[in-house]
Amino acid sequence: MTFKELETRALHTRVSLDTLLTAAKWNQDGLMPAIAQDAESGEVLMMAWMNEQSLRETLDTGQVCYWSRSRQTYWRKGESSGHRQRLVQAYFDCDGDALLLKVSQSGPACHTNRPSCFYLTLDETGGQIVTEPQ
Amino acid sequence: MTFKELETRALHTRVSLDTLLTAAKWNQDGLMPAIAQDAESGEVLMMAWMNEQSLRETLDTGQVCYWSRSRQTYWRKGESSGHRQRLVQAYFDCDGDALLLKVSQSGPACHTNRPSCFYLTLDETGGQIVTEPQ
Repeated sequence: MTFKELETRALHTRVSLDTLLTAAKWNQDGLMPAIAQDAESGEVLMMAWMNEQSLRETLDTGQVCYWSRSRQTYWRKGESSGHRQRLVQAYFDCDGDALLLKVSQSGPACHTNRPSCFYLTLDETGGQIVTEPQ
Repeated sequence: MTFKELETRALHTRVSLDTLLTAAKWNQDGLMPAIAQDAESGEVLMMAWMNEQSLRETLDTGQVCYWSRSRQTYWRKGESSGHRQRLVQAYFDCDGDALLLKVSQSGPACHTNRPSCFYLTLDETGGQIVTEPQ
């Protein structure tokens, strides 16, 4: 199965996780971008990376686990800070190369202690800090 | 300037676009993930890629322009389909390696004619199609 073939399948069609993870388009490092969105407010909190095993762990445990590219290890969000993300619902995109995670976030999502990592607005001349650490 | 240095600057601090784009962490292909979110509903619509020039064009024109990795060219969203994205507000994340674009979307964002590309929910055993083409 390919993600292309899924496009025209009927509503509520189910596909096994093994099939999906095999068809998914991981990058050359076996990773995929994962967007975390607050399930309640809709705020986009952060973007990080997952490999197949971190996605499986996230789906199995309901606690979001990324792959840290800088530390080259599993990153169980909030393990040290306590700012955990409980998974509410995960989604693949149409190409199988991006993930959306609707989460219930404990405390600030950003390592700067801001609610969201996206704290810098951009316009055609520059950027501006628009939120403060909590 | 580094993105790290920005973390502790005061609210409303402004930085020039050239400074930010130089400090930003583009990948080995000069690209960065960009998340498109419906500015009104908060729905995450899609994830695509931008290079520096496509981001500059987006900020200058207010119409979202990505870089198509498959076609290796600029992808002015909606140029052929009419399903354009008007930029409402762009954001950098704390590490300068991801973009969030709040947009006003004309028609469906997904090439499958679904409102969002994230039409496949995931759980620990598989995935399920949860939206139909419009």
